[in-house]
Amino acid sequence: MLQEILNDVGIAVFAASGALLGVRKDFDLWGIVTVGALTGVGGGILRDVVLGITPPTSIQNWPPIVIAAVTSLVVFFFHPTFALLRRSVLIFDAVGMGVFATSGAAIAVDQGVSAFAATLVGLLTAVGGGILRDVMANEIPLLLQPADLYAVPALLGAAVVAVGGIHTSAPIWVWLVTGTIVATGLRIAGLAFGWRLPTAPRPRARRQS
Amino acid sequence: MLQEILNDVGIAVFAASGALLGVRKDFDLWGIVTVGALTGVGGGILRDVVLGITPPTSIQNWPPIVIAAVTSLVVFFFHPTFALLRRSVLIFDAVGMGVFATSGAAIAVDQGVSAFAATLVGLLTAVGGGILRDVMANEIPLLLQPADLYAVPALLGAAVVAVGGIHTSAPIWVWLVTGTIVATGLRIAGLAFGWRLPTAPRPRARRQS
Amino acid sequence: MLQEILNDVGIAVFAASGALLGVRKDFDLWGIVTVGALTGVGGGILRDVVLGITPPTSIQNWPPIVIAAVTSLVVFFFHPTFALLRRSVLIFDAVGMGVFATSGAAIAVDQGVSAFAATLVGLLTAVGGGILRDVMANEIPLLLQPADLYAVPALLGAAVVAVGGIHTSAPIWVWLVTGTIVATGLRIAGLAFGWRLPTAPRPRARRQS
Repeated sequence: MLQEILNDVGIAVFAASGALLGVRKDFDLWGIVTVGALTGVGGGILRDVVLGITPPTSIQNWPPIVIAAVTSLVVFFFHPTFALLRRSVLIFDAVGMGVFATSGAAIAVDQGVSAFAATLVGLLTAVGGGILRDVMANEIPLLLQPADLYAVPALLGAAVVAVGGIHTSAPIWVWLVTGTIVATGLRIAGLAFGWRLPTAPRPRARRQS
Repeated sequence: MLQEILNDVGIAVFAASGALLGVRKDFDLWGIVTVGALTGVGGGILRDVVLGITPPTSIQNWPPIVIAAVTSLVVFFFHPTFALLRRSVLIFDAVGMGVFATSGAAIAVDQGVSAFAATLVGLLTAVGGGILRDVMANEIPLLLQPADLYAVPALLGAAVVAVGGIHTSAPIWVWLVTGTIVATGLRIAGLAFGWRLPTAPRPRARRQS
Repeated sequence: MLQEILNDVGIAVFAASGALLGVRKDFDLWGIVTVGALTGVGGGILRDVVLGITPPTSIQNWPPIVIAAVTSLVVFFFHPTFALLRRSVLIFDAVGMGVFATSGAAIAVDQGVSAFAATLVGLLTAVGGGILRDVMANEIPLLLQPADLYAVPALLGAAVVAVGGIHTSAPIWVWLVTGTIVATGLRIAGLAFGWRLPTAPRPRARRQS
């Protein structure tokens, strides 16, 4: 129940980030709602396609896309307000990321995949929407660029659920809670302390075809 | 039978739009045929992947890709002529879009998905090829940018088939015909009257990471 | 066994090409490893999604991604050396391409698809990682641009396995060996002799929406 609510919060926050990028890129109403919806539910759709769950639950049931579309509409009309809320949005986004990573891993565990695969599926669930958002907007995914930790916390949170859910007999909710705290906590700590990963040592290399 | 023909017309017109973009981007023969083929059958492939129909029918049988590839070859050699035919091509494209949206929704209904999902799958079938085309050419999808109505007619046409096919006992062809007329007619009306969706109200927002 | 080793060589070489592009684009450590891993195993993942093999074998088992990630780490630290090895890397890349094309086609044959589909799946396996790499890096896929033959050799090698494996009674390894020699040999010959495909005849066309 709490997980349901947090999941919906995650969809809304992700959708808002997509819709805001659409506004910045001068998309029209349809474009903004499309990018918002895809950012909100894209991670879950990729998760289901990789796991062979067809049709993806995010399109089979209407609530996820409706939540994402309504959020995008609100952003369409009130986007200057959202831009001011940047700091709060980052916290909600960290919660959404943690919930997506752990719920994605748990769904993969349910499908009987390996712990290795479940960890990667959790990661994909958390970051897939953002990647689709940036590719659709013709930008390099934020995820790949030097910035505050994002994918590493998602990977660790997903790993907690995957390993705990497959290799221990403790109930899955224990690992869901632990994994979400790990992922969201690490993300917020990274923001607070400015943790970053290094870029490659110079000199520069040329492109390999 | 008529639907088969209209579907092949749609594949050819979509492929031509992809091949023309490839010509404009200075791709070589392979690149032009690849983008053309992907634009022609990409929507159907995404539809099948999302519905769990593997391998996708567009690659299991040769006609769709051969139609798309031959069209791309014709564009390769005679592209200035196609550029002159812009107005006629828009009409054929509207027909192809309508047929793709409704046939995609009907195939989804056959697979037993919800009316909500069938509508989205119809939309994906109609717009997926164009999105792949623009992403491969490193451009922002036309679909997201301010322009004449395209996705909304596809969505409505698909919804007619999805809702009619699942919630009424009328034969599916009734809804296929109705939906195609709705989608294609609305698209052509939008072109004729210059209907557009609004962009977001100013002032501009900054990107939310 | 030999095929296993060549396949791992292919994963490593593809991963190196992705990691080098990540270095050139100033991605951070995570971004470089992500693009490297995706380039190394992306073709296999797309192959499995299209064939309905879920979860994709490249994520269900750890070796492919670990090989790709470790290679990317090595590139991260020693990328100037890799840039100097460009010529040798092209040879290994040709071997990897040939092995991916033929093994992809053989796996598709195993799944009972048509020879037409198996050929396309082999092609997708060989070029999918590179396309994902370029799309993630926000560049036009190298595959589409005027350059030395790459996709055509992959297509022909895959066709040898697809047609031979489905329409003859000879053991599949005969076709795997023949197809790999065809694909890799043609690629290297194309590099040696500078074979290229033409671009479209002028004058230029405008974009068709």
